[in-house]
Amino acid sequence: MLADIRDASLQARGLERIAWARRSMPVLNAIAGELDLTGRRVGLVLVLEPKTANLALTLRDAGAEVIVTCPASEVADDVAAALVSEGVAVLARSDASPEQDRDSALRMLRQGLDVLADDGSRVVRLAHAADLLGGLLGAAEETTSGLHPLRVMAGRGELRIPVLAVNDARSKYLFDNVHGTGQSCVLAALDLTGLQLAGAVCVVAGYGYVGQGVARYARAFGARVVVTEVEPFAALRAHHEGFEVVPLLDACPEADLVFSATGVAHTVTREHLRAMRPGAVVAVAGGVPDEVETGDVPPGVTVLAEGECVNCAAAEGNPIEIMDLSLSVQALAVEHLVTHGPAMEPAVHLMPGELDERVARLKLRALGIGLDTPSARQRDFLERGL
Amino acid sequence: MLADIRDASLQARGLERIAWARRSMPVLNAIAGELDLTGRRVGLVLVLEPKTANLALTLRDAGAEVIVTCPASEVADDVAAALVSEGVAVLARSDASPEQDRDSALRMLRQGLDVLADDGSRVVRLAHAADLLGGLLGAAEETTSGLHPLRVMAGRGELRIPVLAVNDARSKYLFDNVHGTGQSCVLAALDLTGLQLAGAVCVVAGYGYVGQGVARYARAFGARVVVTEVEPFAALRAHHEGFEVVPLLDACPEADLVFSATGVAHTVTREHLRAMRPGAVVAVAGGVPDEVETGDVPPGVTVLAEGECVNCAAAEGNPIEIMDLSLSVQALAVEHLVTHGPAMEPAVHLMPGELDERVARLKLRALGIGLDTPSARQRDFLERGL
Amino acid sequence: MLADIRDASLQARGLERIAWARRSMPVLNAIAGELDLTGRRVGLVLVLEPKTANLALTLRDAGAEVIVTCPASEVADDVAAALVSEGVAVLARSDASPEQDRDSALRMLRQGLDVLADDGSRVVRLAHAADLLGGLLGAAEETTSGLHPLRVMAGRGELRIPVLAVNDARSKYLFDNVHGTGQSCVLAALDLTGLQLAGAVCVVAGYGYVGQGVARYARAFGARVVVTEVEPFAALRAHHEGFEVVPLLDACPEADLVFSATGVAHTVTREHLRAMRPGAVVAVAGGVPDEVETGDVPPGVTVLAEGECVNCAAAEGNPIEIMDLSLSVQALAVEHLVTHGPAMEPAVHLMPGELDERVARLKLRALGIGLDTPSARQRDFLERGL
Amino acid sequence: MLADIRDASLQARGLERIAWARRSMPVLNAIAGELDLTGRRVGLVLVLEPKTANLALTLRDAGAEVIVTCPASEVADDVAAALVSEGVAVLARSDASPEQDRDSALRMLRQGLDVLADDGSRVVRLAHAADLLGGLLGAAEETTSGLHPLRVMAGRGELRIPVLAVNDARSKYLFDNVHGTGQSCVLAALDLTGLQLAGAVCVVAGYGYVGQGVARYARAFGARVVVTEVEPFAALRAHHEGFEVVPLLDACPEADLVFSATGVAHTVTREHLRAMRPGAVVAVAGGVPDEVETGDVPPGVTVLAEGECVNCAAAEGNPIEIMDLSLSVQALAVEHLVTHGPAMEPAVHLMPGELDERVARLKLRALGIGLDTPSARQRDFLERGL
Repeated sequence: MLADIRDASLQARGLERIAWARRSMPVLNAIAGELDLTGRRVGLVLVLEPKTANLALTLRDAGAEVIVTCPASEVADDVAAALVSEGVAVLARSDASPEQDRDSALRMLRQGLDVLADDGSRVVRLAHAADLLGGLLGAAEETTSGLHPLRVMAGRGELRIPVLAVNDARSKYLFDNVHGTGQSCVLAALDLTGLQLAGAVCVVAGYGYVGQGVARYARAFGARVVVTEVEPFAALRAHHEGFEVVPLLDACPEADLVFSATGVAHTVTREHLRAMRPGAVVAVAGGVPDEVETGDVPPGVTVLAEGECVNCAAAEGNPIEIMDLSLSVQALAVEHLVTHGPAMEPAVHLMPGELDERVARLKLRALGIGLDTPSARQRDFLERGL
Repeated sequence: MLADIRDASLQARGLERIAWARRSMPVLNAIAGELDLTGRRVGLVLVLEPKTANLALTLRDAGAEVIVTCPASEVADDVAAALVSEGVAVLARSDASPEQDRDSALRMLRQGLDVLADDGSRVVRLAHAADLLGGLLGAAEETTSGLHPLRVMAGRGELRIPVLAVNDARSKYLFDNVHGTGQSCVLAALDLTGLQLAGAVCVVAGYGYVGQGVARYARAFGARVVVTEVEPFAALRAHHEGFEVVPLLDACPEADLVFSATGVAHTVTREHLRAMRPGAVVAVAGGVPDEVETGDVPPGVTVLAEGECVNCAAAEGNPIEIMDLSLSVQALAVEHLVTHGPAMEPAVHLMPGELDERVARLKLRALGIGLDTPSARQRDFLERGL
Repeated sequence: MLADIRDASLQARGLERIAWARRSMPVLNAIAGELDLTGRRVGLVLVLEPKTANLALTLRDAGAEVIVTCPASEVADDVAAALVSEGVAVLARSDASPEQDRDSALRMLRQGLDVLADDGSRVVRLAHAADLLGGLLGAAEETTSGLHPLRVMAGRGELRIPVLAVNDARSKYLFDNVHGTGQSCVLAALDLTGLQLAGAVCVVAGYGYVGQGVARYARAFGARVVVTEVEPFAALRAHHEGFEVVPLLDACPEADLVFSATGVAHTVTREHLRAMRPGAVVAVAGGVPDEVETGDVPPGVTVLAEGECVNCAAAEGNPIEIMDLSLSVQALAVEHLVTHGPAMEPAVHLMPGELDERVARLKLRALGIGLDTPSARQRDFLERGL
Repeated sequence: MLADIRDASLQARGLERIAWARRSMPVLNAIAGELDLTGRRVGLVLVLEPKTANLALTLRDAGAEVIVTCPASEVADDVAAALVSEGVAVLARSDASPEQDRDSALRMLRQGLDVLADDGSRVVRLAHAADLLGGLLGAAEETTSGLHPLRVMAGRGELRIPVLAVNDARSKYLFDNVHGTGQSCVLAALDLTGLQLAGAVCVVAGYGYVGQGVARYARAFGARVVVTEVEPFAALRAHHEGFEVVPLLDACPEADLVFSATGVAHTVTREHLRAMRPGAVVAVAGGVPDEVETGDVPPGVTVLAEGECVNCAAAEGNPIEIMDLSLSVQALAVEHLVTHGPAMEPAVHLMPGELDERVARLKLRALGIGLDTPSARQRDFLERGL
């Protein structure tokens, strides 16, 4: 079996951590028994840690041959060892160079995948560039920033496979982007700095799902939150939710903590950094490369995690209950592409509503939350229109 | 000029109240100078009070001949008198019978309207039923519950004119439905009952835009809020925002205050009412007829405003800053139908994005809120996709 | 029996409203059965409405002869008529002149009271000035602003009777001042103005119990709240709870709504009013005369309720669940003065802790809230100190 | 000089961390220049980390001879090395046994201290037990749980020196206990568990200052918070702030996360632990030994940090801005005892109000927050009483 890992002897600890995480993943557990991927080869790109490892095991249990890759900075070597011991092919080691990371991805692609589940669309784009699409039926992509370049490619007619936008599933972005990233970014920033948020001025650039989450959690911790936006409806919403809204440059001088949550490069520029006072701290929530310009940071200003996504860099990512939702959507996306990929256009597709809703209903069941059901008189009202 | 009002001598007070309201309507003021409706005849159906009267005057100033009707229970006679003194045709009096209300609507339709701006779609449906569509280019409808039957008609192929869904404009529902109705319903219920919300259990049936607003404002007042839903994503969102989510019948026994915010008939049934304890209070937020079954309310339980929309019945509706947005969208919708109605399908159409955004930008300008503008490097990033 | 009321024929409506209020006063109900005031004469000064009327009836049921007075602006004539029909002496009519109000108070004092329960300490001070203390055993006073001058008198050696500080009971100020006044002031201001708080700038002068309540409720409604203070700990607390803290004059230019919650005269001066923008609204929460200087209000600025306590002037005062607590403390204070007054110094006394706690426990029982009881091991820990 | 540390070579890193912390301690910086402790010997007991080290350096700069001890589990060896290099005597190493810790404390006491600043009152009690009070003028104690046994001793007439209750200074408990401990406990629990609080049920036992902080922060993170109490006013306050209040045993079955914030031993007993569901997590906020009975934890239930104070055990304690306040009070307490100790009774004394207020005013100045000053007319009103 294909394996390039750092230390096979770490498997016991990895297995234990994977099993511990599994206990808090009731949705993936429920889906696991119903998936059928017999005889398929699936490539997985993901931050390799105990939660995501359970996606790999779930796909394997469904009959797939699974190959995992992951850039060196995001590999937990014990988890890698554990997966190999469980029959999953892993090309991921924490001591790899960027060139080795790229070679691992190419090696995975050359095996001939049926489906690729990507994270950041790095490997989908590599497969296009290196002409290794082969018999790939389609890819699933789970981040906002990974979907953006694929949509640009689709707009130019350059996308050659169907892509399922896992990120845009409601059971993903309504929870992962708002609550998962909101909680984990605020926590990571506080952990790294030891700051007290109560009474501090916290600036949030961007009021999309991630920005809304960060703004809410920061306010919850007692910060006075100032929002900056380029889009009028988002600005008005922030205003009506009681946040001050101003241009970013005007907000910088009094900021104690600045989160960039735009997913757009060059959001926090040198000019902004120079407008901040000594002691100011800057962090990226979610994020793309160069979202903060880290080339020339003035003395006294700190950019956390060197400008990379603060919650990824500083901790093990989003909370497990939220990951349970996102990884479950990912699993259903893989199965959907196996079945329907051949008939799908080479475009970015939304997740079918019934799969999305299935995840939500399984989560409600796991939480023990009961819904009402419309009565016959109510259904009649809805159909009749009056 | 067409006029059927109760007391023309009340005009002075009406004019004063209309002028006072106008001071807080900067968006409508900004739009007013740019509208052109020369030679058009516009029918307006609205709750007749100082804020809405300013829409009538704005359309008149733009060159239109304006005819207003309104059911007796929603007429402010001084405002009616004031509009007539300003050259607006008004068929609306607070002492009219339901038959007279219907006759007024028919009389308005028989004048031959170019455009109809409706509220609840009562008159659009009457025009279909009475075969009085004549040369009507289209209608604007500003409520969720008014759009629902029109969409059912469209689905059956029975809608014969284009309808602009003013309610579905973002500058309407993101603010009017959440904040306007949220604040006004909670206020109205507290005014009518003298209840203290701090520590009370407040049940909110339905977690759409109105329900979210009501739940948030009730929690803000210290209530422990329980949400009920039929839709899984809405239920999960409520759960993640810290609300308890249970079936309505389970929530009734401990409720101090129940809001129905579903817009669906028969939401709070006799069975629910019987499950409540003495002292419980029920109110409808937004709402449709029979949303609460008021036929057999048990002793000790109070249904506010006889089951009608509590904020409409108990006060003068939504706050003026919010109405400024909604009425501005309505004004732009009328102009759009005049220009583009002849080319539009007989269906329910969304407001064009640029009109919606124009309202939002005018509101931001009135608030003195500045937006950022993407830099050249950011625009390049967004186009390039990476 | 002594009676000077406006219209005895209104008694039926008054009785109905008093009975309706009684249903929501479980604490006063529980206390009622245990009070004994046989043969005592008690003077009551209070805003005369259905909730306070129940205090009068409770004292009467305990055997006291009760005499009620109230300034004209705070009299509900139907409630006055109802009390008379129930055997309570009432000298209070809504059409009285200030001189008549004063005469009524003097007439009450001349009857020879055992105990006086006052509101604002107007009648206690009148009794001192007019030398009508007679055999008065003591007085109870329920407002912050009424206690202040009595404490000044005590400091100068001019207070000649013991006074129980009902306002300073924890079951009063922790709930009435924060939640009762907080909710009712924000509601009253919104009702009077039709303002939308979401996105508005609301300035709260003073961060004592009332100011904390107002600030919290205003923020809950989506306002951006700015606090002003003269006391450093209060200022720091406001800061740590996420409020901006600045001097009042600096806060005025951007205020949409200003609440004065200091209980100190001349808080909002002409200079402050002149610094506000057109459309600004000013209200007094709680309050003393001249807290806002209303002599020369600039055009465009509105002072609600002519600068009097906005929640008293605009509605029927605080919510009933809260009044139940405050009136129960008042009832126990009257009984305490009857029994212990003769032995008490002429000073301002705190309520005995056990009476205060009794009210709190009765409220918890009415709410169905269970407390834990320290176990034997815990009591041992607490005594042993380790 | 007296020194028993683990590794003197770590001094460079320690010095750097101490200097970095100093930048965020403006209040201690401002006080530093005004203290005079020339020729005095001061014993310090504290968690030895960069923030507290600055207190030691401040006292040294004021002319004192300073001796520091700290239990092994709370020693940062690099900070210990740095202090020694700066002329502070340190008896603290991370590899000491409990016996060695006790010996270090005795050794410090035998030097003959003028003042002792303690943390948990362990060394004050040891000094009494070992009869080593010598010429000790007094002690400062900064925790709630350390003061409790000293008050019991005072009550029994066993306390032989004056103790200043640093913990009870308003500039300490209003911020450190509510915001500092509230934020750090919630953060620590989330870091240790990876839990998502949004939608989780969080039980907080005890609604004192620490409990209020924890409850608020947990709710801010989206949890549904249930409070348990033994004291009726605290229970009523929690209820009015929108929390459910129930007995602890009733709250256990649905808890995801339980915080004990009572400071009383045996709060969470075996019976409570057995009532929890698998996956439940228990943490102590603040805390005393045996607050959670860890002897027999059922499988599936996790007690964080083995039942010790979760924020001390899991991270570097409270945020620096808050510690700046607490350590400043501690510094002023030491100086006060040097000057006034000889004249003070052997009892637990509150901090003099003017010292407490001085800290608050310095913090406001550091934050750039301006207060209002009562005008002449306002001072007149306050004195006159009307």
